[in-house]
Amino acid sequence: MTYRRDWTGRVFIGASLDGFIARRDGEIDWLTDPAPGPHHTTVTSSTEVEGWETFFPSIDHLVMGRGTYEKVLTFDGWPYDGKRVIVMSTKLESDDDRITIVRSLDDAQRALAASGAQQVYVDGGTVIQEFLRADLIDEISIGWAPVLIGTGLPLFGFLDRDIQLSLVATNASTSGMVHVTYAVHRHADIATHQSR
Amino acid sequence: MTYRRDWTGRVFIGASLDGFIARRDGEIDWLTDPAPGPHHTTVTSSTEVEGWETFFPSIDHLVMGRGTYEKVLTFDGWPYDGKRVIVMSTKLESDDDRITIVRSLDDAQRALAASGAQQVYVDGGTVIQEFLRADLIDEISIGWAPVLIGTGLPLFGFLDRDIQLSLVATNASTSGMVHVTYAVHRHADIATHQSR
Repeated sequence: MTYRRDWTGRVFIGASLDGFIARRDGEIDWLTDPAPGPHHTTVTSSTEVEGWETFFPSIDHLVMGRGTYEKVLTFDGWPYDGKRVIVMSTKLESDDDRITIVRSLDDAQRALAASGAQQVYVDGGTVIQEFLRADLIDEISIGWAPVLIGTGLPLFGFLDRDIQLSLVATNASTSGMVHVTYAVHRHADIATHQSR
Repeated sequence: MTYRRDWTGRVFIGASLDGFIARRDGEIDWLTDPAPGPHHTTVTSSTEVEGWETFFPSIDHLVMGRGTYEKVLTFDGWPYDGKRVIVMSTKLESDDDRITIVRSLDDAQRALAASGAQQVYVDGGTVIQEFLRADLIDEISIGWAPVLIGTGLPLFGFLDRDIQLSLVATNASTSGMVHVTYAVHRHADIATHQSR
């Protein structure tokens, strides 16, 4: 089904250079506690990718999978106060009133529409991949960490078509992270463009 | 086996943002003929990743797999005149005197040593992955194309340890490609460092 969509779908995530967002057990030590020692070239850029400190206040809804939700429950405190949080899971049973559980992508879209979502932070590999396949992502920001971890939970997954991206901004940080933001071309837009 | 290594192993490759170097059938149309239309922000950077026009003259040897070699045979003309070309393949039989066929990584290292290799361009996903696992890559340059292709031949593969990278340079081109160069930390160096 296709819904009229009034919200913007946004990805904001860190990944290893080989495309993983976490180790198989969910650990992100390679991102949060990088190995000491490597020297990185200082790079200045004419653009700057938006940081978490302005990205997070700008979003009103989050959609995540069960894995991400259960990971967040291990944190000290709930990091999403003031945001509506939708957890997509076919199995999760919970009376946590900070979240809305949905069973499918259709349900997620209905919940976002009903809730007047505008800026939606889509998080977690499985959910990001499902939203991308359904043409529901408008913007992708990635921080590429300067490490190869070789195995883990992948950021991207199978697509049955190419998705074209526009580079919006890129810069490097002193920790050797390369930050990139892309606008995602909606499939519908490209189809229209090509038929002209 | 460990050999004394007097050469530098270098990767110079284009990849889709989701980490593929070619479609499953080997096509790189998404890289060479990007979809028209996407507008990309112009980004200037204080560093610049080395381009092909200076990289290629700087290398004296190439190592590639059978897939890459057979792809190159479909090109107009042989692009590697003046370079020694080693093809790693367990099966390939050929009387092409422009190449040296080796059957294993050990054989490749022996051939490089015997030939006095200094700057070695390591090409093709399978060979790059095998060299990385064996601690034989010193530098990785990637041009990230602004597209997700969803499936294909992966640039990176399984590793049983993290490989730390140092950012050397990054810049974007007007076509929306984000270029990055990393120095690869040899496992031996890190092991030495950690034991201090």
